[in-house]
Amino acid sequence: MVKIDPKECKHSECLEMILPVRDALDILSGKWKLPILISLSFGNKRFSQMANEIPNITDRMLSKELRDLEMNLLVKRTVHHSVPVVVEYSMTEYGRSLDKVINELRSWGQAHRQLIHSKENGEHPN
Amino acid sequence: MVKIDPKECKHSECLEMILPVRDALDILSGKWKLPILISLSFGNKRFSQMANEIPNITDRMLSKELRDLEMNLLVKRTVHHSVPVVVEYSMTEYGRSLDKVINELRSWGQAHRQLIHSKENGEHPN
Repeated sequence: MVKIDPKECKHSECLEMILPVRDALDILSGKWKLPILISLSFGNKRFSQMANEIPNITDRMLSKELRDLEMNLLVKRTVHHSVPVVVEYSMTEYGRSLDKVINELRSWGQAHRQLIHSKENGEHPN
Repeated sequence: MVKIDPKECKHSECLEMILPVRDALDILSGKWKLPILISLSFGNKRFSQMANEIPNITDRMLSKELRDLEMNLLVKRTVHHSVPVVVEYSMTEYGRSLDKVINELRSWGQAHRQLIHSKENGEHPN
């Protein structure tokens, strides 16, 4: 009988790795959070600017997602008491701490996309 | 009227960032893919080993997710024609290319969890 490497991931060890990764994924996954964060990474925005900039997002979703992101301290909402009142959204310093995560996801996603395409075309990448 | 930084994320520029990130998230998100990958990162496994090791996963889900991961070239299924036949799953080299992504997600998730907890307890982290 073939021997399989007997190392097993201890349950506690596994969970210790899995839980924070799930936390991070919960915050980033879904259709809109990343587009919003990426849009704000280009500069502060008003609600209407983001609504125009992010394809297909509804006002209702944008408003909900902004509240979630604010609760998670990633986005800041500032009311300028000018006339007319201007409400401005910005990425917090803490939101910028996601840069490395987003960049890793992006470069891996790009490489993966290329690999799958070359595989579909019958090429054999080395 | 308050002037807001007029830089806008051009639609094409935004999409260029968003699409690969979404690809990566599609592959990693959900309840089971990461537990499976993390379990295999500790060593090669048989189906029954993973089924025992990953809390609450059903055989049906494990089988489905393993097929998906195999299709995405992240996991390899090897049949050893011994008696009895042994089917072994392993992480591919390509699967290991996810290490950096997983580590970034993990360290960010850990920091985030701490920040949210200290916020809930009324502390003000510097």
